[in-house]
Amino acid sequence: MRNSRSFVFAGGEQGSWRVTSERAIAGDPLAPAQYLSVIPADEWTASQASEWILRGTRSNERYSTRDEKQSLSAIQPQLARPEATCAALIPIRKLEAWWDLSQDERRRIFEERSSHIAIGSRFLPAIARRLYHCRDLETAEPFDFITWFEFAPSAAATFDELLAALRASLEWSFVEREVEIRLERDYKSRAG
Amino acid sequence: MRNSRSFVFAGGEQGSWRVTSERAIAGDPLAPAQYLSVIPADEWTASQASEWILRGTRSNERYSTRDEKQSLSAIQPQLARPEATCAALIPIRKLEAWWDLSQDERRRIFEERSSHIAIGSRFLPAIARRLYHCRDLETAEPFDFITWFEFAPSAAATFDELLAALRASLEWSFVEREVEIRLERDYKSRAG
Repeated sequence: MRNSRSFVFAGGEQGSWRVTSERAIAGDPLAPAQYLSVIPADEWTASQASEWILRGTRSNERYSTRDEKQSLSAIQPQLARPEATCAALIPIRKLEAWWDLSQDERRRIFEERSSHIAIGSRFLPAIARRLYHCRDLETAEPFDFITWFEFAPSAAATFDELLAALRASLEWSFVEREVEIRLERDYKSRAG
Repeated sequence: MRNSRSFVFAGGEQGSWRVTSERAIAGDPLAPAQYLSVIPADEWTASQASEWILRGTRSNERYSTRDEKQSLSAIQPQLARPEATCAALIPIRKLEAWWDLSQDERRRIFEERSSHIAIGSRFLPAIARRLYHCRDLETAEPFDFITWFEFAPSAAATFDELLAALRASLEWSFVEREVEIRLERDYKSRAG
């Protein structure tokens, strides 16, 4: 039985998201894929053809305070809004030095020095975000996190701003691998 | 490929630890087992006979500050000390209410109100501890954590004190399932 918070992201020749661009921001790229499927882990079977798969699990929040959590949840949009036909899949791996930090050190870099939550909030409700964790899965995964974003085509420039702000932060100096895959919803497909 | 920080705990008729007692502290028990194996996930195969298996992954610390992490690492003993022939496997599941808390709320309950780290430190270096995470694995696991302790027979009463102190804490009001399995190293065995 699979964890109901666990998902498989499969890049290949089918899927409900069409890849419009794919580039490595840091470290190695992923193999090129034309489409992406996002499939609950318990519906995915290893026989499904794909160029690559990434696995990730939704989890509890690791850094936000009660106040931040409440402000965020008041303005955070749901995924799968009809107008949000653009998406981005951005898997990230951080340096071991990040994971060796203590919780208070990571929090300080994440928010007090990098404003990760504050930056994200500035782009709400235009940009829906979801985080999946991969570092502690039983399978050895190539990334620590999978970040997922959904937005309307009219918010594409805003999304570029969000990425630029996060990548300019101190937190990002701990990112050793990052791939950016831009996507458009493909209405012809019925899969994943 | 499996995560090198991931382990399988298999209860059954073989293993390098002999079960001396097994009881449910909260919620359902596990099926009785005579022996326990602790096996790196990449060495475990599903064909190995066992009564039950639990999976868990070592991970970064979630609550300790820099000062706490440093004090702990100065006095924390290694696993597998020759004199530490007693062990305990205590898998734990917390209420959803715990996971819905924000990071600062969980930290406050964990340390400022329950002294989890401070209590553990009082029993160092007699009792070696290791934590494995299971909540965010891709498989649906029956517990959120597996806690593991090793100590010499002469520290058995001290270990009972440690358990009593933790179980009396506010943090433990969030524990909905807990099983306590006491073990003795079995020198006749060569497996896991």
